[in-house]
Amino acid sequence: MYSLEELRHFIKQAARDLEVAREPRELYQPIQYVFQTGGKRLRPVLSLMACNLFNDQVEQAVMPALGLEVFHNFTLLHDDIMDGASLRRNQATVHKKWDQNIAILSGDVMAIMAYEYITNCPADVLPDVIKIFNITARSVCEGQQYDMNFEKQIDVSAEDYLRMIKKKTSVLLAACLQIGAVIGGASRPDAEQLYDLGLSLGMAFQLQDDMLDSFGNPALFGKEIGGDIKSNKKTWLLIKALEIANQGERKELVNLLTNKNRDEKGKVDKVLSIYNKLGIKELAEKLVQSYFNKARKNLNNVRVPNERKSVLQNLTNSLMNREK
Amino acid sequence: MYSLEELRHFIKQAARDLEVAREPRELYQPIQYVFQTGGKRLRPVLSLMACNLFNDQVEQAVMPALGLEVFHNFTLLHDDIMDGASLRRNQATVHKKWDQNIAILSGDVMAIMAYEYITNCPADVLPDVIKIFNITARSVCEGQQYDMNFEKQIDVSAEDYLRMIKKKTSVLLAACLQIGAVIGGASRPDAEQLYDLGLSLGMAFQLQDDMLDSFGNPALFGKEIGGDIKSNKKTWLLIKALEIANQGERKELVNLLTNKNRDEKGKVDKVLSIYNKLGIKELAEKLVQSYFNKARKNLNNVRVPNERKSVLQNLTNSLMNREK
Repeated sequence: MYSLEELRHFIKQAARDLEVAREPRELYQPIQYVFQTGGKRLRPVLSLMACNLFNDQVEQAVMPALGLEVFHNFTLLHDDIMDGASLRRNQATVHKKWDQNIAILSGDVMAIMAYEYITNCPADVLPDVIKIFNITARSVCEGQQYDMNFEKQIDVSAEDYLRMIKKKTSVLLAACLQIGAVIGGASRPDAEQLYDLGLSLGMAFQLQDDMLDSFGNPALFGKEIGGDIKSNKKTWLLIKALEIANQGERKELVNLLTNKNRDEKGKVDKVLSIYNKLGIKELAEKLVQSYFNKARKNLNNVRVPNERKSVLQNLTNSLMNREK
Repeated sequence: MYSLEELRHFIKQAARDLEVAREPRELYQPIQYVFQTGGKRLRPVLSLMACNLFNDQVEQAVMPALGLEVFHNFTLLHDDIMDGASLRRNQATVHKKWDQNIAILSGDVMAIMAYEYITNCPADVLPDVIKIFNITARSVCEGQQYDMNFEKQIDVSAEDYLRMIKKKTSVLLAACLQIGAVIGGASRPDAEQLYDLGLSLGMAFQLQDDMLDSFGNPALFGKEIGGDIKSNKKTWLLIKALEIANQGERKELVNLLTNKNRDEKGKVDKVLSIYNKLGIKELAEKLVQSYFNKARKNLNNVRVPNERKSVLQNLTNSLMNREK
């Protein structure tokens, strides 16, 4: 069994060998840049942990795990163009640092590299791995489209929102775990438990992101608090608040959203005060907790000795209490 | 053995079943639109022909062939954004008809669909098929980057240009033939002959495109003649002309390229007159012919009875004399 740190090291090592010192430089430099800026590497680590539940030979899952991380970074790169985002992980986004054409094409190459690495797995599991990944990749794009649609849509329900983040975020975490498990030789039911575990983890993770943006500790969060509120982003918090508010509170919220108010700090404070009155934070915490409970049940159902589960269990626990 | 028309029918049928009647509509409508506008379907037809050389069961190659066509259309969609093109096959491009974000994301889904279909092939050839396709897909993106680089680069040699069109155009035709052959059960040397045949065909095809744009019959070509000249596109014709021109002709050409001359028709006529003086058309024809000769040799080297080669041979011959 490998520790979190050991698994992260496998990924770090493989990422260092990414074939990006290639021509044309205009195409590969941005890919190198995206990969150097890092990130938590949560997805490949989860994939290796799932493999390691069933098998001590995690090496065979390293390239596919890296491919899943490359895919994740490809979606961020293209999402940043679509969202017009200037910063990602505190660094200029590719379309800002270079230009939009470079960002489109480098992203396309990253998608292809993702497939290259993910399909670099034992031939006997290749058809299953590809099938899981194809469905997942398509779903992530569909999720991004729903996310863009919601910006223009007035009546987004909490249910719509949860379905969107399931597609955009959760299915990829689920696929990471399932693919790792399949490569590790898991039975179909065990691999499916891990898929479901990933779904719940993804839902909890995204809802936590929403919560941290409104209620996080600025020193730990690393970003200014209230960004989502300022940009009128339809997060679960806002959708739920609009849903359960009384007529007066609802009117106040809608006013805050539609007024071209220049006092952004005042707006954040007022929205947060409505959230507090409605107990939105507690509702979100309850929902997050319910997803972690589901995830815990899924891990319980996996038929391997308990001691093999501790690394994944610990990671799940640490995510439960994350403050950044 | 199937005729060209029968093979085209397989593709048409499969294209009709493309899973694009899906939600979200914003994402799938553009894909449907791109596919309805058609095109020659040259790539999937070549793939099926290569399969049919070795095997009467071409059905197993239909989905991969369709996937190769979807991939081709994905690259056109994203290229059109990068080139700022308004029209494709006489219809508005996706980023013009919808918007840029839709075009980026629909393209991404098409790339994923391409992988879905291409990997929908017998498990025993799957690792080979994926490997060929991964290398090819990456090369096509690299070719597009070189093409964009050349727009800003002054000293592009004929050699640079041929390398660029090899990457951007030829390798995909080559991969279509090789993948079809592999699925049909070809030996490795035969599959490689077909790859090389596709390379030569692709080079000839792209050079013909350049020639038709300057010397084509407007009634048959379907586009105005001289578009490349007006936009100062660095085609093989222009590069070669600059290379072999004497000092006076070279100066005149450079003047025509750099002058912000509003008399576009006059510019086209003057450039064409220099091309004629230098015998550029004949040089291009000679080069195209040499690629067709190479292609013919590759087909001769394939170890199947001659009668099985006639359909592919006929298609190659018809491409040799194409006027549109």
